[in-house]
Amino acid sequence: MPAKVAYSGREVTVMNDIIELLEEHRSVRAYEDRDVSDEMLDAIVRAAWRAPSSYNAQEVSVVVVRDPERRRRIAEIAGGQPWIAQAPVFFAVVIDYHKTAVGVGMAEGEQRIHRELEGVIMGAVDAGIALEALMVAARGLGLAIVPIGGIRRDPQAMIDLLELPPLTFPVVGLCVGHAAVVNPLKPRMALPSFRHEEVYRAERIPAAIEAYDREIVAHWRRVGRPGGEAWSRNMAAYLGAGEPRPVGEALRRQGFLA
Amino acid sequence: MPAKVAYSGREVTVMNDIIELLEEHRSVRAYEDRDVSDEMLDAIVRAAWRAPSSYNAQEVSVVVVRDPERRRRIAEIAGGQPWIAQAPVFFAVVIDYHKTAVGVGMAEGEQRIHRELEGVIMGAVDAGIALEALMVAARGLGLAIVPIGGIRRDPQAMIDLLELPPLTFPVVGLCVGHAAVVNPLKPRMALPSFRHEEVYRAERIPAAIEAYDREIVAHWRRVGRPGGEAWSRNMAAYLGAGEPRPVGEALRRQGFLA
Repeated sequence: MPAKVAYSGREVTVMNDIIELLEEHRSVRAYEDRDVSDEMLDAIVRAAWRAPSSYNAQEVSVVVVRDPERRRRIAEIAGGQPWIAQAPVFFAVVIDYHKTAVGVGMAEGEQRIHRELEGVIMGAVDAGIALEALMVAARGLGLAIVPIGGIRRDPQAMIDLLELPPLTFPVVGLCVGHAAVVNPLKPRMALPSFRHEEVYRAERIPAAIEAYDREIVAHWRRVGRPGGEAWSRNMAAYLGAGEPRPVGEALRRQGFLA
Repeated sequence: MPAKVAYSGREVTVMNDIIELLEEHRSVRAYEDRDVSDEMLDAIVRAAWRAPSSYNAQEVSVVVVRDPERRRRIAEIAGGQPWIAQAPVFFAVVIDYHKTAVGVGMAEGEQRIHRELEGVIMGAVDAGIALEALMVAARGLGLAIVPIGGIRRDPQAMIDLLELPPLTFPVVGLCVGHAAVVNPLKPRMALPSFRHEEVYRAERIPAAIEAYDREIVAHWRRVGRPGGEAWSRNMAAYLGAGEPRPVGEALRRQGFLA
C-alpha cells in the first residue's frame, strides 16, 4: 500500500484517484466487440479474492464465464439483458458454503451456519464485498461494468448451467468489457437521506424523495429518455408488483435454511 | 475517471495503484488515538453513496457513529471487540426498505419486496457493495479498517441504539481510523478454489483446503500466534457450533419476511 497521504485540496495525491473513481461509478449496457485480456482478468479476480470475508471463511467463489453460448443463456435467464451476451466477460458471484463444509468435515465437525438466515446474510454481504472489489478493479483498469441481480430470477437455471454443488448459490453477476458508450452519472437521492449521524433520521426522507423524484425525471429528459419515471413510481413498480422470485425455493433445494 | 489505461508490466499507470490497494487488503484491530478529519469522512461516505444498488433502489443507508459512549456500547453488542471503542469512526451499514416504502407509498403502491427472502438478499448484497466502497475509500486515504459482522449478534440492541425505524436492519459495520500497527497480509486459499472457469470445479477443494491449513498455521506462527488453528478447525468452531444468531427474529420484528 502506498504511504499514508493527506486528503486536501492542496495535496493532489495518487490516492485521490481512488476517491474519484468511486464517486464516478456508472453502469454501462453497451460494449465494444473486444475481449478483455487475460492479464486484466487475472488482476480483477485477484482483487476480489483478496477482499475480506466474515471469520476468514472465504465463503464466496467466482465463476468466470467467457463462452459466448453460455453468456447468451445467462442473458435469457436474467430476463433478457443483451449486454450479458455482448460483454466478453461475465462473473457469477457465488455464496459458497460447499468449500467451508468440506473444511468443517475435515475437522470432524458439522456445519450449521447455512441452515440459518445468518448464513445467507453473511454470504450475501461477503458476495457484495467481492462484487464491489471486481467492479472497482475493472473500472480501475479502464473497463466498464454492469452488475446483474437478474440471475436471481431463475437461480436454479444458473445452478444447472454453472454446475454448482449443494450449499452454493449464485447470488449476483457482473458484466465486464470495453464501453461502447459513456453514460452520464445518475443522480443519487440527497446525501442526508443516506448518511445519518449517530442515529437514523426518518423525518428527512419524504422531502428527500420529493426532490429526487423531480431530479431524476429531469435527468431522464436530459439523457434522452423523456418518458422516464420518478423514482417513487419506479419503486412501486419494481418493489411492489410482479411475481415473487423463486429465491427461497432455490436456496432450500441447495441445502440452505433446512 | 482517468482515461483508459493498459495494464501491463511496462506501463506503470496511476490506475495500477487501485489494483495494488485491492490486493493489499488487511484488517487492523489497533488504532491510534487520533480522529479522522471531516473532509476524509465526507469523501468515504460519498464513495458508498455513489455505489450502485439494485433497481437504483438505494436501499442502503449508513449511520456514522463517532460518539465514544455509543461506540463503547457497540463494542459490547459485537461480543467485546475493543477496537470499535478505540477507532474514532464506526459506520453502521443498514438495509433500508423504510426509504423505499415511503417512496412506494407516495406512488400509491404497496411495497412487497421486504416480505421476501429476495429482499433480504438484495439488501445484504447492496450493503456489501457499500461496505467495500467504504473500505476502499478509507484505505485509499491511508486509513485503516476492520469490518464488523458481530453487530448481528444482537441486531435488536443496534436497532434500539441507532433508533432505526421499521423495515431497516443493521447488517454490518466498519471501524475506521489510523492504524497503530500494520499487520502482514493474511494468506488466502489457493486461487483455483475461488476462481472457476465456466463451471464450478468441486474436485479442487479438498487439496486446496489441506494446503491452506498448513499455510495458515505457518502464518500464525510467523505473526506470533503459535497456537493459531488450521482454517478447517476454525471453520468447524465458527460455522458449526455456538448459539444461532437472533437474526431472523430481529428481521421479523422490523417487518421483514412477514
